[in-house]
Amino acid sequence: MTTQGSSNTRQTQRLLVGVWAGLAALAPDALSSIAYGPQEMIIQLEPAGLRAEWYILPLGFVLIFLLGFLVFSYRQIIQSYPNGGGSYVIGQATFGSTIGILAGSSLIIDYIMTVAVSVTAGVDALVSAFPSLQHDMVTADVLIIVAIMVLNLQGVRKTAQVLSPVTYLFIAMILMMATVGLVHPFQPIAPHPKIFPLPSALPSVGVLMLLRSYTSGSSALTGIESVSNAVPIFKAPSAKFAKRTETLLGIFLGSMYVGVILAALREHAMPTAHMTLLQQIAQETFGHGIFFYLLSFVTMAILAIGANTSFTGLPQLASLMSWDQWMPRMFLFRNDQDVYRNGIFVLGGVAAFLVLLFNGNINRLIPMYAIGVYLSFTIAQVSLIKKALTDRRAGKPTVQLRVLPFVAIGSLLTMAVVISSIISKFQGGAWIIVIAIPLMMWGMVSIRRRYRTVDQILSLAQPVHIPPSRPSAVLVPVDTLNQLTVQALHTAQYLAPQVIALHIAPNEAAEQEFAAVWAQSDTHGPLHLQTTSVQNASVMESLMAYIEDWQQQNPGQVLWVILPILTSKNPWEGFLYNQFERSLHQQLVFGHNIMVTTMPFPLQRPSL
Amino acid sequence: MTTQGSSNTRQTQRLLVGVWAGLAALAPDALSSIAYGPQEMIIQLEPAGLRAEWYILPLGFVLIFLLGFLVFSYRQIIQSYPNGGGSYVIGQATFGSTIGILAGSSLIIDYIMTVAVSVTAGVDALVSAFPSLQHDMVTADVLIIVAIMVLNLQGVRKTAQVLSPVTYLFIAMILMMATVGLVHPFQPIAPHPKIFPLPSALPSVGVLMLLRSYTSGSSALTGIESVSNAVPIFKAPSAKFAKRTETLLGIFLGSMYVGVILAALREHAMPTAHMTLLQQIAQETFGHGIFFYLLSFVTMAILAIGANTSFTGLPQLASLMSWDQWMPRMFLFRNDQDVYRNGIFVLGGVAAFLVLLFNGNINRLIPMYAIGVYLSFTIAQVSLIKKALTDRRAGKPTVQLRVLPFVAIGSLLTMAVVISSIISKFQGGAWIIVIAIPLMMWGMVSIRRRYRTVDQILSLAQPVHIPPSRPSAVLVPVDTLNQLTVQALHTAQYLAPQVIALHIAPNEAAEQEFAAVWAQSDTHGPLHLQTTSVQNASVMESLMAYIEDWQQQNPGQVLWVILPILTSKNPWEGFLYNQFERSLHQQLVFGHNIMVTTMPFPLQRPSL
Repeated sequence: MTTQGSSNTRQTQRLLVGVWAGLAALAPDALSSIAYGPQEMIIQLEPAGLRAEWYILPLGFVLIFLLGFLVFSYRQIIQSYPNGGGSYVIGQATFGSTIGILAGSSLIIDYIMTVAVSVTAGVDALVSAFPSLQHDMVTADVLIIVAIMVLNLQGVRKTAQVLSPVTYLFIAMILMMATVGLVHPFQPIAPHPKIFPLPSALPSVGVLMLLRSYTSGSSALTGIESVSNAVPIFKAPSAKFAKRTETLLGIFLGSMYVGVILAALREHAMPTAHMTLLQQIAQETFGHGIFFYLLSFVTMAILAIGANTSFTGLPQLASLMSWDQWMPRMFLFRNDQDVYRNGIFVLGGVAAFLVLLFNGNINRLIPMYAIGVYLSFTIAQVSLIKKALTDRRAGKPTVQLRVLPFVAIGSLLTMAVVISSIISKFQGGAWIIVIAIPLMMWGMVSIRRRYRTVDQILSLAQPVHIPPSRPSAVLVPVDTLNQLTVQALHTAQYLAPQVIALHIAPNEAAEQEFAAVWAQSDTHGPLHLQTTSVQNASVMESLMAYIEDWQQQNPGQVLWVILPILTSKNPWEGFLYNQFERSLHQQLVFGHNIMVTTMPFPLQRPSL
Repeated sequence: MTTQGSSNTRQTQRLLVGVWAGLAALAPDALSSIAYGPQEMIIQLEPAGLRAEWYILPLGFVLIFLLGFLVFSYRQIIQSYPNGGGSYVIGQATFGSTIGILAGSSLIIDYIMTVAVSVTAGVDALVSAFPSLQHDMVTADVLIIVAIMVLNLQGVRKTAQVLSPVTYLFIAMILMMATVGLVHPFQPIAPHPKIFPLPSALPSVGVLMLLRSYTSGSSALTGIESVSNAVPIFKAPSAKFAKRTETLLGIFLGSMYVGVILAALREHAMPTAHMTLLQQIAQETFGHGIFFYLLSFVTMAILAIGANTSFTGLPQLASLMSWDQWMPRMFLFRNDQDVYRNGIFVLGGVAAFLVLLFNGNINRLIPMYAIGVYLSFTIAQVSLIKKALTDRRAGKPTVQLRVLPFVAIGSLLTMAVVISSIISKFQGGAWIIVIAIPLMMWGMVSIRRRYRTVDQILSLAQPVHIPPSRPSAVLVPVDTLNQLTVQALHTAQYLAPQVIALHIAPNEAAEQEFAAVWAQSDTHGPLHLQTTSVQNASVMESLMAYIEDWQQQNPGQVLWVILPILTSKNPWEGFLYNQFERSLHQQLVFGHNIMVTTMPFPLQRPSL
């Protein structure tokens, strides 16, 4: 007999979007990294002197080159995985478990670092405009993470659509700023930099430093995969519109990146401890006016939206991985607000912890960022190639053969970013990721193995042990003699032939006092009272000691416990009652494997 | 029939102490405030110029005068309340509830502020010696609070005795430093300051500023009451030894205070943002050597011990107040480590929150400190006077009449500190306390009123409603068909005539698949399976919807639920299992008042 879900079913409105709305929703993750990508490139070159800043020009073009390949590959991924191309799903489907959990671990790190880096960069932008905030940066970081967490826990979904103007405002401001900055900045125009300068004009910069700068700059391309994860939200034909959106994203990201780099070189903008590169460029282009302040807010906003995508992404990923038993089942289900609560808590908690650990310093977070992202990029692209070849061999070609070399080059380039990140930033923080990913994979393997072992233990293929289900006795903790207790005793009499009413008194005098009260009352029928006093133990210890004694004296017999609980519509009541009963429940069930029946006693609404 | 507690009773060793050991254990709270008292006095005078520092001399003498009266009064309190003279107990006993909860609220604030101020001052001392720590001050504060919390949760009690050398080391170092600093400091000796300088030589200082300085300095006398709280730990005759200890404490505290003030004036020591007064004096007296570094560690140690006394004091106070129903019952009981867990958590949490809120800045915490402490002092002294007069009238004089005028003056002086704190520090932070204390008192009254209302509702004087204790049906959530489920179904059959085995599937295909598996299995006897699929709701919603439907279709009938729970000796198992079941338990019992039987299924130890 099947019963349908009743009146509580919720209709999830499917709002299918077109290209521009889709871009507004999915671009923030990628575009917001303009706020720190170019800046981190420059910072890595600083030790070689101010003029070393020029190197961001060639490095930037290599990154644009990489961007081109990434966009190309992801267009193919969109085409081939119309239900969403997250690297975990496609990695596992194509190569099996090991690559799957490698991709999953990389993605988890990606999501966490996105939150930490985005929020930190956003606060840096605000501090550039409001320097008095600089002492409270870490506090602001943590508060913003908590705020985003809370919004997500409430299941506030429609905010994404409300915020689409922010995306386009940010794009417009950055492009405007870069253009004006190149053509007619506030400051006088410096001499046009030579494209091939004399060797003596440029400081010599070691390969390692160039690699560090390059890998820092590569953090600006994170988020380029967001469109491929969300193909189903587009109107039909969704693949076509999604590909178009991906291309547009690439174009905007690329032009903003180039614009910022050229403007930075033009104005010799150098980020400082309390002034981000973007804010610096804004100041030198438009002065310390409205644009300057507005930019800091818009930057914070778009970074917050970028961070928010992690809060939808990671819990969904954790749920997927739980279905495959790689992660604990606590991540599996959505709750009544249609959110994956535990995933949201873990993400917010770890991100906040990292921010606290590194004192809100984005320079120390960036080294850990690129590895997870680019590993995930690589797995996605290689999976696509394998899938294309497999489909072709099976006679159902889905991807044109000629695009595969490009995807292959793309995956080589992204793997190069991973390797150069590890090499050049190892001491800077990459070692943490190099240790973390295998550790996470080992954890996932252990979890799955445990789940499978337990499934086997519990399987009906094993001989079925049915312990006696009838209890010989039921214990009722008797606090005072009131309606709660009387009801508990009645219920106990239904459950088992023998009822033990146990009262635990603070001392012997109180013990005898209660025994007298009990004897005089007629509400408990012929039941005897057991009492004990606390002496030097805690109440919990005395109770458990009594139970252990009973079990020793009655081997092979089963004891149940009834726990009366006061319930109320008033949420504050939880502080006033039941704390001890909760601990007792925990101890009895988990500590001593005793069957516990929780008996709720609803309190009427008080006339306060 | 009375049953004694069994083998788990714990013998609390009563180690009775003499004067010197008692002083070592009880003095840190008071003596440690030398680390910030004189310093805060000077800081409050800074705006009037460097020479205004001289005023700490007359203000200091007024404080010594106050100290004298306090020691005198507390000797009387020790005499009259040999079981411990906490101002809550004696205030409530003498004047009734209102004064009682006023004292209780003041004490709670006192305890919390002691932790916040002590830890902050201790980290300041360390930063003075190790300036590179200055960026991590707040983190260090929070970590130390957490460390003290954890130590207390473990029930580590004997540490107090281990640490008695710290107390004497601190006393010796301060006195030595003050003496040498006055006689033969590192620096050349400045001209002897005139006791009555020409009016033109001293900057004019407003009364408000003097009051602020005075009330800041009064924070150095906090902790003087600690001996009276702990009279029972002394050897017999405990009152005599306790009084002797109190006097010694006053002598040490007074001489250290005077010494520090004189040395500070002699050496024109000015505390700065990263150098405390004591460290400054140490540096100018002995140079930047071993003494300087050692002092910072000893100061941190004694402040930590001082903070630790709050962690024993507040949970005990909260427990006492819970017995009188002023505070929730969660503070009532000790747990198996013999500690009041909830009290420790709340204290650590609030203190850490304050430190975070005020960015580890001790100057912003001090204004809130004195009010609670001195209000508590006042109530204790006035209670003593009333008790003495009452006992005398009853014909059992306990206190000599002639001491009462001195106690009265003492209570006037402490009340003056309260009032001048409120007036001079109102904007500085005292307003928080002025609001907090009435708020806490209102909270306590509300809590007691609620407990009494519920006691009345539950009392057997009311007609006793016994709802039917037999369930008509028992619902068993069936996840998969395994040993856990089979055992749950057996138990269910014992509990009620009708058993509902409910399976919630992710979609209709899975629903039918499971129905087929069920039909083929023979382990469940003639039981029918109910299934439903999740559709757009969460699993929890579907389950609750099914139950609500059943209740609507079966009015007046009672449904129970069996929740099978996997238990294991492996603590990690908790992450892997039972999360959903815990939420379900919460929803069923507290959300829907449904009787839930939790059935533990112990897993054998895995052969991992």
